[in-house]
Amino acid sequence: MLPCLGLALYHHGRDIPALVVSFGITALAGLILAGRQVNYQDIGYREGFAVAALGWFLTAVFGSLPFVLSGAIPHPIDAFFETMSGFTTTGASILTDIEALPLGILLWRSTTHWIGGIGTVVLLVALIPSLRIAGMQFYRAEVSGPTKTKALPRVAQTSRQLFKVYVVFTLLEVVALRFAGLPWFDSVIHTFGTVATGGFSSRNLSVGAYNSLAVELIIVFFMLLCGINFALHIRAMQGKPQVLWRDRETQVFLLVALVAVAVISTNLISVTGTSLGASVRDSLFQVASIVTSTGFATVDFNQWPDLSRLVLVLLMFVGACAGSTGGGIKVIRIMVLWKLGTRQLQKLIHPQAVIPVRIGRSVIPPEVTDSIQAFLILYLGLFIGAVLVMGMLGLDLISAITSVVATLSNIGPGLGVVGPVANYAAIPVAGKLVLSFCMLVGRLELFTVLALLHPGFWRK
Amino acid sequence: MLPCLGLALYHHGRDIPALVVSFGITALAGLILAGRQVNYQDIGYREGFAVAALGWFLTAVFGSLPFVLSGAIPHPIDAFFETMSGFTTTGASILTDIEALPLGILLWRSTTHWIGGIGTVVLLVALIPSLRIAGMQFYRAEVSGPTKTKALPRVAQTSRQLFKVYVVFTLLEVVALRFAGLPWFDSVIHTFGTVATGGFSSRNLSVGAYNSLAVELIIVFFMLLCGINFALHIRAMQGKPQVLWRDRETQVFLLVALVAVAVISTNLISVTGTSLGASVRDSLFQVASIVTSTGFATVDFNQWPDLSRLVLVLLMFVGACAGSTGGGIKVIRIMVLWKLGTRQLQKLIHPQAVIPVRIGRSVIPPEVTDSIQAFLILYLGLFIGAVLVMGMLGLDLISAITSVVATLSNIGPGLGVVGPVANYAAIPVAGKLVLSFCMLVGRLELFTVLALLHPGFWRK
Repeated sequence: MLPCLGLALYHHGRDIPALVVSFGITALAGLILAGRQVNYQDIGYREGFAVAALGWFLTAVFGSLPFVLSGAIPHPIDAFFETMSGFTTTGASILTDIEALPLGILLWRSTTHWIGGIGTVVLLVALIPSLRIAGMQFYRAEVSGPTKTKALPRVAQTSRQLFKVYVVFTLLEVVALRFAGLPWFDSVIHTFGTVATGGFSSRNLSVGAYNSLAVELIIVFFMLLCGINFALHIRAMQGKPQVLWRDRETQVFLLVALVAVAVISTNLISVTGTSLGASVRDSLFQVASIVTSTGFATVDFNQWPDLSRLVLVLLMFVGACAGSTGGGIKVIRIMVLWKLGTRQLQKLIHPQAVIPVRIGRSVIPPEVTDSIQAFLILYLGLFIGAVLVMGMLGLDLISAITSVVATLSNIGPGLGVVGPVANYAAIPVAGKLVLSFCMLVGRLELFTVLALLHPGFWRK
Repeated sequence: MLPCLGLALYHHGRDIPALVVSFGITALAGLILAGRQVNYQDIGYREGFAVAALGWFLTAVFGSLPFVLSGAIPHPIDAFFETMSGFTTTGASILTDIEALPLGILLWRSTTHWIGGIGTVVLLVALIPSLRIAGMQFYRAEVSGPTKTKALPRVAQTSRQLFKVYVVFTLLEVVALRFAGLPWFDSVIHTFGTVATGGFSSRNLSVGAYNSLAVELIIVFFMLLCGINFALHIRAMQGKPQVLWRDRETQVFLLVALVAVAVISTNLISVTGTSLGASVRDSLFQVASIVTSTGFATVDFNQWPDLSRLVLVLLMFVGACAGSTGGGIKVIRIMVLWKLGTRQLQKLIHPQAVIPVRIGRSVIPPEVTDSIQAFLILYLGLFIGAVLVMGMLGLDLISAITSVVATLSNIGPGLGVVGPVANYAAIPVAGKLVLSFCMLVGRLELFTVLALLHPGFWRK
């Protein structure tokens, strides 16, 4: 919060008191907790999950203080929703006039993205060495993707490397956007929204406000970059850039995006009569924004023909690559699920054969395929349950379905009443809480939060 | 076709020539094939799948002859769609004025339901002893549900028992409907539609045309009865009726229906102001019709509020019990999937534990849970692929989604342009073929047909 306070002081903003008090309360709570003696050796699986899930929840509570205290978002539930949306890099907003907010508050709003994108635990482990021992249990709970087992000594090292890549991407994009003509402030805000694949903008019309091809292309490039597994970026920066385009998941990820652009731009040309250039430009930006779970908009895609909207909704489920800052089911999981489905057909033809599941040259072990299938089941279960609740709260079919997938996959905007030019302000309070829950569950990849809700978790 | 010809002759119908010629062509084709020597010992898994899938396809081709030749459905693709819809007990229709058809054709249309409900193979094995040896491979391919392995000698016996239960239910319902005031013809038509969980009616307004509570309650009772595993009915008729209500799947099936009725009737009362009695009556009929995959209608549920429509769409995915005449994913599969999802949460808490999946007192073996998970993946994959195609053909989102689930789960009516008072006539030809494919794949529970499409099937 301190850099945001700095900005507020520089501009003599009306948000100064709110940021001072918020910083004070948060720092005080931190100091009180830091004074307690904790034996880090006692932290096992259960404690890891509990700390990760409840820690994110508390982060959102404290993070909402500047919004409430400054009067930018008077209602605490609204502020909690906005902050959870920020930290989980969802980018769903209840704000109707973003441009009316003071700059310090706007920067804080986008800073929650930047923190949440890399993950609070990774950030802390990278920056605060004393947390290293406890890091492993939290790391497991927080880093995305089905294959995330890490030996203890490597957690701190990996966290530092992840952080380095993240900072490099951030600096590069800020400079690129500045060169493309955006003011420094706007460059930082949209960079935070991009590298975290979050989607908060400082403009009411999102990226569409600039109407600049250069800005859009820069953002598309960095969205896609941050939708790729950061483990590959680490190796690429260590002098092996070829790992990026040799990776199967990355190939499929980019292919899916390409096919989606082709289908949507064809659909736009044939149904709405948009020109080829405009169709490709709009569909490229929107596809990159949705498949990486960012949620920036340059056009109101809720007005697009139904086929294009359908493709976007499907991309919301798919999401980006594992180990990226993006959300969704993740491309690698879809690939493994596809292989599991077709393997069953092979088994029907060769009932005695033992057929391993391969991605590229590596065999996916049964524990991982079990976990991926359970992920699908839990994702669908949660999706259906939440859609039913949103339906009971009075949302129409399309809005209920897309509000849930847009939060569960950490996208941001959906269709209908939660479309890109609308927002989540009109959702009933109970709905905002359900969707906040979806964001958190989605960001921590289901298992962490759902394990806490399982009765067996609380039994000895 | 002969009984339908008999009815046509009795009424001096204009459909007599069409039925005579159709019977002649079909009988001739049968006689030619029956003359060929086949070594039934050569029939393995591959041949079983190929015969079942292609056999159903051919049955629909020959079954469409009366419609084309009588001029009732002039276009062959339309007639094929209607017949496939009949044999797969889907009940989706392209007819706009059912009541204008001659009686022989109407009876034939509903007879396809009755044949398809029990399954052509079961029917043939039960009636023609010489087919017994080959029956097992086909039986596997055709009978629904995840646990269908049967020893050879039991196939013929089980088929006869299934057939007996089916005939008893048919006779009971015909008599009950006749007593409730329906003419004999209408009683037979609606009984065929009910016990096969098909949904073809002889009236343009479906069951709603009678506006009779007694008729509706009789049909609800028999729809639910035929949505329950027929293996339980066999045992119940052998003097153990308690197996019916002690079965876990049956309990969950009826509970799901009950909850759906409660949610929808509450929704109808609060949103549309319908009276309690009418709401319960309408929702009971519609829920029973959809969850059993029958598809009869007493009201235009496409006009219901969105929450009610959402619940109905979810029921379309769920479907009835395994081993019933109903379609959908099936209740037992959903139960096993739920257990697999929550088991993964338990595994997170107890990483070393080996946790078997139990339904009631029986443990589901890993081969079966693998197969059920693959079923979910293939169902979703097919669903998404078909929805995309329907979207490309110009259908709106809701119509595209529900036309696919309504055919893949063998329901019949969906929402939007394929709602209960609309029909499939306006769907483009390519769409009718895709949906016919969905019906067949759904009726044969995915694996049989999809295995044929797998490249490995055709390799030695």
